[in-house]
Amino acid sequence: MAEAKVLGGAGLRGQVAGQTALCTVGKTGSGLTYRGYDVKALADGACFEEVAYLLIHGELPNKSQLAAYQTRLQGLRDLPQRLKETLERIPKKTHPMDVMRTGCSMLGTLEPEKDFEHQRDVTDRLLAAFPAILLYWYRYTHDGVRIDCRSNELTTGGHFLALLHGKKPSDLHVRVMNVSLILYAEHEFNASTFTARVCASTLSDLYSCITAAIGSLRGPLHGGANEAAMALIERFAAPEDAREELLGMLERKEKIMGFGHAVYRESDPRNEVIKGWAKQLAEATGDTVMFPVSEIIDKTMAEEKKLFPNADFYHASAYHFMGIPTSLFTPIFVCSRLTGWAAHVYEQRANNRIIRPSAEYTGPDLRTFVPLDQR
Amino acid sequence: MAEAKVLGGAGLRGQVAGQTALCTVGKTGSGLTYRGYDVKALADGACFEEVAYLLIHGELPNKSQLAAYQTRLQGLRDLPQRLKETLERIPKKTHPMDVMRTGCSMLGTLEPEKDFEHQRDVTDRLLAAFPAILLYWYRYTHDGVRIDCRSNELTTGGHFLALLHGKKPSDLHVRVMNVSLILYAEHEFNASTFTARVCASTLSDLYSCITAAIGSLRGPLHGGANEAAMALIERFAAPEDAREELLGMLERKEKIMGFGHAVYRESDPRNEVIKGWAKQLAEATGDTVMFPVSEIIDKTMAEEKKLFPNADFYHASAYHFMGIPTSLFTPIFVCSRLTGWAAHVYEQRANNRIIRPSAEYTGPDLRTFVPLDQR
Repeated sequence: MAEAKVLGGAGLRGQVAGQTALCTVGKTGSGLTYRGYDVKALADGACFEEVAYLLIHGELPNKSQLAAYQTRLQGLRDLPQRLKETLERIPKKTHPMDVMRTGCSMLGTLEPEKDFEHQRDVTDRLLAAFPAILLYWYRYTHDGVRIDCRSNELTTGGHFLALLHGKKPSDLHVRVMNVSLILYAEHEFNASTFTARVCASTLSDLYSCITAAIGSLRGPLHGGANEAAMALIERFAAPEDAREELLGMLERKEKIMGFGHAVYRESDPRNEVIKGWAKQLAEATGDTVMFPVSEIIDKTMAEEKKLFPNADFYHASAYHFMGIPTSLFTPIFVCSRLTGWAAHVYEQRANNRIIRPSAEYTGPDLRTFVPLDQR
Repeated sequence: MAEAKVLGGAGLRGQVAGQTALCTVGKTGSGLTYRGYDVKALADGACFEEVAYLLIHGELPNKSQLAAYQTRLQGLRDLPQRLKETLERIPKKTHPMDVMRTGCSMLGTLEPEKDFEHQRDVTDRLLAAFPAILLYWYRYTHDGVRIDCRSNELTTGGHFLALLHGKKPSDLHVRVMNVSLILYAEHEFNASTFTARVCASTLSDLYSCITAAIGSLRGPLHGGANEAAMALIERFAAPEDAREELLGMLERKEKIMGFGHAVYRESDPRNEVIKGWAKQLAEATGDTVMFPVSEIIDKTMAEEKKLFPNADFYHASAYHFMGIPTSLFTPIFVCSRLTGWAAHVYEQRANNRIIRPSAEYTGPDLRTFVPLDQR
């Protein structure tokens, strides 16, 4: 079998594959913007639903628009019985991203997108339902309970924590979840978003696009980095030994997750935001290991490798301090990035041409077919 | 909301997005080749499993390899109970492609791809299981029966018909199903295959890649063309009036499906193959309307629009003559194209770089965040 050769400039790196009005990544002076707003300002001053509204509807909501939007989402959180019964049939040991992918696809069979006029309704439904899709399955398979998929929490982040822990989350935790969901909401033509756009370009339905994007985000080169960062940090027992141990790992050329980025060259603008909140959570929790260890890894990577932490690195400890199991980190990413994916699908639909590139052929020349009885 | 402007050269048309050893499309003298073999020779001399083996393993099988492969697939046809229970919860009116997408994703939760070493095992499983995923749901929701997902049929095409009709299919029908599955098996960097490769480039699992590809194939610009061709042909009641009626439709600028192609310029090499078999089926069925109508549409489109029928046009009547409901046409495409998708995923994995293009930004300049209470 002729396998393809090593490519130069592979992965369409640096090639413009379309237009977007949603996001800039790595532009000097602004780092990361959503529809023109610096992500740091959004993370500092907005709740996640304001940012979701911005991405989905084009402008930040005013007070009454936000209130109506949050109320609407609150009313869309429960799951259809058939979806719950499906989630109950997914094994406990399943990768939670496979649960998200299947739950999204199944909801698409029960409440299909009738036409593109309803694309924002489908987005709202998924935004409201994703925490329950994950956590109904998780609590059923891990705790043996059928949870109420609704909560009194106003925000998506608070709702997520309420379903996970079965109690009202603290204000600090709700705030950090909002920040986290804002930071992960949109990132231009990353692989999962590009997957959604390719799917959208056949004029397929929104559930297909989002299901496809979840499948891409599942990959360890994409969405799984904060889980990998957590696995790394947990290997260190004490701050005192962290530097030495890390130097040993670098010596042995082990992969250190959560550093560097495909697009950012000097720093990831999301890092300083989440690092600050991880520090606050560490203090609130009385942590004396995980955050100090994280800082030592951070400092050592800068000194030894001139690499900066990306958005995923301090997310790991932040999520951990809020009692979130590591396997649920990437599904939180889904709850957030859904907004960016959906907005990209709308853009693709509004100005569509089917995405159908060409390939360089590296296979055998034309050869004569030999019938089975002569092989 | 700033929508993107009209693009020139959009959809990556004509841009090389990677390498493949699997397929050439539209090269002079060969039309369409799979790993160097002309698709016409394959459709004429091979069964579908020979072609699946060629795409998946790199070479045509010999007799004992083919026998072992078919026996293996036969043994993988039944579905896990939890998947059957999920399929029973999908409504009757659901788009069958949503059933395929959900069934594929659900199987991925029950029998995950443990590592890339097992990629061919997962492919075999899906190849064997796809007819049952579709038809267990279809027969349950339409006929109220829980069918046996196994059959004695040696070929995938025969098995499909046996599950659909609940009886042994004729030799002619089995032969045409084999031809059809061969013609649809692979087609370079079309949108669904490219979706699978983008997903694969994050090193996600094979189920995610195939689920994503199904979602793309679902789109009316991609996989739905044979269903649309059927809808067109059924509008004509008699051959005598077909030419006149079609001219009226062209006059009214109505869209005529099943003609022309994004890559082929002069003819679609698959058309003459399936047209011949559609003719044989028409004769065997005693049809005096559908095939003659199809030929008149074909001839009129050539005269009036200089457009040629693509692979989908005569597939419509061929499937119809075999008693296949129109809504199941695109899922048959899935049963076939799975082989090409999977082979592309192997290629992507063997020489991977994450597919992450750039975008041209058309949105607002940097703007100052205004807090909620000042909006």
